[in-house]
Amino acid sequence: MAEFELIERYFSALSRPDASVLLGVGDDCALLDPPQGQHLAMTMDTLIAGRHFLADAEPFGIGHKSLAVNLSDLAAMGARPAWALLSLSLPQIDHAWLTDFSAGFSALAGEYGVQLVGGDTCQGELSITVQLTGYLMPGREMRRSAARVGDGVYVTGTLGDAALALDRQKAGSPLAELQQRLDRPRPRVEEGQALAALGVRACIDISDGLSADLGHVCRQSGCAARIHLDQLPLSAPVREYLRAGGDIRPIVSGGDDYELCFTAPARIAPRLAGLGVTRIGEILPGEGVELLDASGRALDLPPAWEHFSS
Amino acid sequence: MAEFELIERYFSALSRPDASVLLGVGDDCALLDPPQGQHLAMTMDTLIAGRHFLADAEPFGIGHKSLAVNLSDLAAMGARPAWALLSLSLPQIDHAWLTDFSAGFSALAGEYGVQLVGGDTCQGELSITVQLTGYLMPGREMRRSAARVGDGVYVTGTLGDAALALDRQKAGSPLAELQQRLDRPRPRVEEGQALAALGVRACIDISDGLSADLGHVCRQSGCAARIHLDQLPLSAPVREYLRAGGDIRPIVSGGDDYELCFTAPARIAPRLAGLGVTRIGEILPGEGVELLDASGRALDLPPAWEHFSS
Repeated sequence: MAEFELIERYFSALSRPDASVLLGVGDDCALLDPPQGQHLAMTMDTLIAGRHFLADAEPFGIGHKSLAVNLSDLAAMGARPAWALLSLSLPQIDHAWLTDFSAGFSALAGEYGVQLVGGDTCQGELSITVQLTGYLMPGREMRRSAARVGDGVYVTGTLGDAALALDRQKAGSPLAELQQRLDRPRPRVEEGQALAALGVRACIDISDGLSADLGHVCRQSGCAARIHLDQLPLSAPVREYLRAGGDIRPIVSGGDDYELCFTAPARIAPRLAGLGVTRIGEILPGEGVELLDASGRALDLPPAWEHFSS
Repeated sequence: MAEFELIERYFSALSRPDASVLLGVGDDCALLDPPQGQHLAMTMDTLIAGRHFLADAEPFGIGHKSLAVNLSDLAAMGARPAWALLSLSLPQIDHAWLTDFSAGFSALAGEYGVQLVGGDTCQGELSITVQLTGYLMPGREMRRSAARVGDGVYVTGTLGDAALALDRQKAGSPLAELQQRLDRPRPRVEEGQALAALGVRACIDISDGLSADLGHVCRQSGCAARIHLDQLPLSAPVREYLRAGGDIRPIVSGGDDYELCFTAPARIAPRLAGLGVTRIGEILPGEGVELLDASGRALDLPPAWEHFSS
């Protein structure tokens, strides 16, 4: 398999002129001119067929998602995306698949000004690794360890949509309204940068579910969180599911929403209006994440609990 | 599989204090402070069990090699290594394997001051992706496209050792003297930086064999190369193999030596003494790589030819 030919053929469309890219795909390394005075944020995630997506999922969506999950990590740091490297492992060369995969990757990359600058292809089980670098002003980064007692807890968008969509898809009755939330997650790139600029310092993206991801923030910040379940921002299909007696646990523990969860002190709260974020709880002394329903009862959610009961 | 626990447990030893690493493993992204006024060189390579190494190969060597192949790419650019991200896909968690793998990765990382700053672990077929970033002074980079007619062609070290070692290992009679060249390739990191500092501008690392890799340089530089086979630097075991009537073709087409092949104009030649490099040919007008034996006959080497005849 002639790796550079493959990469160049399908991904050359992504290599638009950009002053920061001195050498892109096709040499031993990419050569980049980083913006002076900025810090770099770097992340890398692997998606494997059968684990992170169905092996027969449409390749456009796989291309989209492989970049989206990395963009979401940069968003959670407050960074501006810049350069990607892509390692693609394929059972065999399938030109139709590659065309659609690269179209999905390319469409999202173009939206956020991401340049594909290098990578690797090889033969193996279907698997995609994307490494993404962005940058931010020193002191502007949002960390998991920066939540403070007294902060409010906030989220972007609505929660549980991807989990419900996946459940309905598995049950053979996909929910058209939510399918895009599962197949084409929108990373909160602009929101992350806006929050960082407003002074938010603690943030994580919700890839493993609200309770697990907020748990990481609490552990790394040395504090506890209390969430008010009746304040969760929910889409119409999720509200309907709950009204019909659906279990709320998969909504707070389901992954793949790729919304941001962040904490902010009271002095920042007024600046958050207009960003489409919702306050859902507060940071307290102690440890762990407490989930309270409208009558003040704590929801029992075993740490490893992650499936719909249906 | 709790990815951060795994990564932190086995790789925390690699996270030594370094002023350039503001946040390492354990947040959404690594946060890095790049040296001001330098360019970044980035590379990423995936190694898959059964393709790039035997599935039952000793894990120390796999850890070493997964970093070495990336260090070799930085060496070919003339860059100084800095930060690595590691994505590890494992069929199951095997603590003995992980301990040895991380020891192999760690030993080489420590030698070159590489910091592991992030990554990912997941369940899948055994596969390792390493992304590596280094830096260099603007204008110092070595490119595949910078060979010029009249340049001499040079290589570091000796050629064909890994190919012969692999052949002997497959034949069931491993060559102790050369086994390390196959199992623990030494990337030419210092040599790459030294060559770049001396003014060398065209370089590639030999991972696919001399003829194929020099072919990339010729194609990207718009020129041809002539190699004098009697001038190739060879180790004692390879000389012995040839004296015994062995075919020279696997020596010039075998991969995995991870030596550097570079070109340099005559004015630089005097400065190359003492670097342990050998002049093996010259850059000419035209295209393709011509391999001449001592009597001036051209060696016939089909492009895809890469196996020992034994």
